[in-house]
Parts: sequence; C-alpha cells; structure tokens
Amino acid sequence: MASEPETGETTAAPNPKRLEIVGLGSGGLNGITLAAQKSLKSAEAVYGYGLYLEQARPHIKKARLHQSGMTAELKRAEAALDSAWGGLRTVVVSGGDAGVYAMAGAVFEMAAAKGLPLGRGPGCLRIKVIPGAPALVAAAALLGAPLTHDFCAISLSDRLTPWELIERRLALAAQADFVIALYNPRSKGRDWQLGRAAEILRGELPPARPTGVVSRAGRAGQEVTLTTLAGLTETPVDMQTLIIIGNQSTFVYHNYMITPRGYLNKYGDDLV
Amino acid sequence: MASEPETGETTAAPNPKRLEIVGLGSGGLNGITLAAQKSLKSAEAVYGYGLYLEQARPHIKKARLHQSGMTAELKRAEAALDSAWGGLRTVVVSGGDAGVYAMAGAVFEMAAAKGLPLGRGPGCLRIKVIPGAPALVAAAALLGAPLTHDFCAISLSDRLTPWELIERRLALAAQADFVIALYNPRSKGRDWQLGRAAEILRGELPPARPTGVVSRAGRAGQEVTLTTLAGLTETPVDMQTLIIIGNQSTFVYHNYMITPRGYLNKYGDDLV
Repeated sequence: MASEPETGETTAAPNPKRLEIVGLGSGGLNGITLAAQKSLKSAEAVYGYGLYLEQARPHIKKARLHQSGMTAELKRAEAALDSAWGGLRTVVVSGGDAGVYAMAGAVFEMAAAKGLPLGRGPGCLRIKVIPGAPALVAAAALLGAPLTHDFCAISLSDRLTPWELIERRLALAAQADFVIALYNPRSKGRDWQLGRAAEILRGELPPARPTGVVSRAGRAGQEVTLTTLAGLTETPVDMQTLIIIGNQSTFVYHNYMITPRGYLNKYGDDLV
Repeated sequence: MASEPETGETTAAPNPKRLEIVGLGSGGLNGITLAAQKSLKSAEAVYGYGLYLEQARPHIKKARLHQSGMTAELKRAEAALDSAWGGLRTVVVSGGDAGVYAMAGAVFEMAAAKGLPLGRGPGCLRIKVIPGAPALVAAAALLGAPLTHDFCAISLSDRLTPWELIERRLALAAQADFVIALYNPRSKGRDWQLGRAAEILRGELPPARPTGVVSRAGRAGQEVTLTTLAGLTETPVDMQTLIIIGNQSTFVYHNYMITPRGYLNKYGDDLV
C-alpha cells in the first residue's frame, strides 16, 4: 500500500484537469498564504460561501465566482468538480484550513461518490489541497499559547454525528488531559449542546480550569474572553465561536492562557 | 475574569515594546502569510532555529538575525524577551504555527518565569502571536482530507512528558474514535516509542485502519506514504515525520485518505 499520493509538488503535471481546495487562513485578511494567492490568481472558476469569496476577491484576476450558501457543501463540491472535469482551472475556497471540518472533505467525498478518476495520469482529475491556519490556531494565538501540548478538536454539531458519540469524546478527552478545542458550540436550532457539554466536562475537570472563548478572530466583532470552565456557560457564544479548555498544567498570566511544553522540569532543561 | 487579552488588533498600541511570535506556515516557502511577511519586514531583531531563519530571510529587511539550536528553546525565548524589553522590535520565528508544540509556549513560560509585565499599558511588553498552518494540516493536505472530523494531536516525545501519560492518551484517543495525529514519532535517542505506540493503537483499532505518513511536507525530501495501522512500523519515519491515523469512517479512494464529515446520511443532506 506504500505509495505517494498524486498531490505532491515534486514533478510537473501534464494533466490539464485541476481542482485546488484553498484555505484562506484565519485571523483576518492578512492570514492568506502566498500559495493561496497564487492559486486564486490563476483560477478560472472559484466556488465558495459568500463570506469567503469576498475574502478571496482581491486576489482573483480572471475567475468567474460561484457563490453558494453555507450549508450547501455537497452541491458546491459537485459543481466545482464538474467545472474542473470540464477543463476549467477551478478553485474551492474555505475559511481557515480547507481540511479541518471544511470543504476538502466534501470535495473528496463527492469525487468518490461520483467515481471520478483522481490522480496525475491522462484522463484523471488532479486535486490539490492548499493549507491555511485553522480557526483553532487563530483562537489560540489571541489567547496566548494554550496549544503547546497535546490537544483535540471536537465539534458540538450533532447534525451529522450522534450526540452520544460527542458526549463520549468529551469525557474521554477530559480523562486524557488533552487541551480541548470545541468547534460549532451553538447555532440556530442547536442551543442546548454547549450546556450539556460543559456539564460533562465539569464532571471530569475542576471548575477553575482556564477556558478561552474567541469569536470572529481577526474579523469585525472579534471577542476574546478568558474565563474558567465554571464561567463558560455564562460567556456569550454563537456560530462563529471557538472555545479552548486548558489541560491540568494550563495557567493564566497577565490575561494570557499558557500551556507549558512539558510536565517535567518545568523551567529546567531544553530537551525536545 | 471576562476580559480581552492585549493581543487583539482593535486599537493602536502606544507602547513601543513589542515581541511578535510568527509561524512561517507549513508546506514549503509559499506557506507564509501576509501577516507574517509584514511582521518580518518591520522587525529589528529576529530569533530562531537556523532552518526557520533561512525560510524567513527573504522577507527580512533590516533585522539582525539571532540563530540558535533546535533544542535551545528557553534560552532563545529569554534572549528574544530581553531584546524586546530593551526596546527592539523583536520577532521569534517558528515553523508551522508558533503555538502548536512550538515557540509561543516557551516565550510565555519564560515571560511568566521572569515576572515580566505583559499587556498594552505603559511599561508593559506587548506579545502578539501570528498564526500559520501547523504541520498537522500540511500533512493532511498531502494525504487528501483526513481531518474533516474530530481529531487529536499527540507528541510521542517523552523528554518532558511521562511515557505513561502518552500511553494513556493513545488508548483513550483510540477509544474516542478521534483521527489521531502523531508528532515527534522518532528522534536520535528515541527509537522505541513509535513501536510501543503502534502496539497500543493496534490493541484498540483494526489493523487495516488507513494511516498516512508524511515527512518534510513541501520541503526537499518530501515523502508521502499511505499505509495501514499494521504497516505503520514498516514505514520509514524520522524526526520530521507526522503520522495521521484515520477514524472508523476514514476510507481510501484513489490513493487519497478521506474522513467523511459525519456518521449520519453519508451522502444525504447538507446540514452543518
């Protein structure tokens, strides 16, 4: 099974059918990478949710823009695949990183469902994912350095995942002493999940555990709140909020949330 | 406790003492963001490990470069804090994101150990972290879309973390059905940890579980291997390797590793 996927940058691709899935980064308009800018510059068609198309627009030279709603992920993926398969150099844009709870999954799922031949060979579609900073690290950057040790990301959306599995992950993550990042804590129509999640975490962790709440990192309306696990449910949270709960070593210093690199020799030696 | 850390971009800082901790991104030289380029351009002193200083060099205009070894994290953090405290606009560079197992932790730990006043007020040092794409997402991008659902990151380095805790996290992460990213799987002097980790994971997960192994993403010598949990210990791995092990839904299609967005209605509706 050992083999190199067709996404590497080592050799030139003779194949003209290309789809790129581009993460625009987090933390504002300056979060975009050089690689993402290059991809957008040469695109002939760009697909995305309205907010992300606006963010990409200054870097687009000639592409036609195809806007779709936030929840139309599979339809957008299919339309973009059809565009690339038809010969247009096509880009799908995502906020943050395209692979973290984002469009890369929908595109590959849809390509597999349609049975498209992927790869660099003749008659194949070449799909390339261009990384960006995910919301997780943008939120962490505003809080200080909470992700310096082992961490996990859990989405509280139970639209596509059984709630029982989410509860189980929360409990096990707390028992594992992970720094815990919670995505999608609340949305229209999902209003009880965060309260229940906090209850489960309070069953495993002390109420004073440092907890950061970040909304709209680097965008208009940015909010950064440093609180505790006990204070989490009193902090305003919406669809664009990311929550980070510290591990047993996380501490607060001058309003920054800091997770030390190790459990041994805290200020001792410098070994990695 | 609710308050906004001093790292936001909402108002101008009258305070001249500034330290920025900059992630250079992953996936090659084009992984750098506009924000990181701006920070390097205006820096007067830049601190980092040699490889990352080289990566930053094209974006540096006037700064003096201060190189240090890979393991000298706390010494580098202290020197950079002293430089910023002395009034030079100082930048510390990291590969990937500066907050994920990287320099942001060491800088804040050292600032706390030294008792430095942090914030925007007069006489304070303002520390700002500039996000980049961590190695985790660069590896995922080369593999396809393995991080579309809940995931965790675990370092196999037991230099600063008791090995028993690492073993416990591995077992709980597998039980939680996380996609699992393993950092630091091997180094000079740490040669048995990956074998033992694979043994623990094989006790919880099926041997055919899709597993991706990525070394030096976007850099010279890049290697991308798609294998299984059973094949992991036969795949070459070194200090610059990141390993991603799928969850129960992860599948392989045309050499791409794909984790579906949900467990329900796999190709059904589009709800988030």
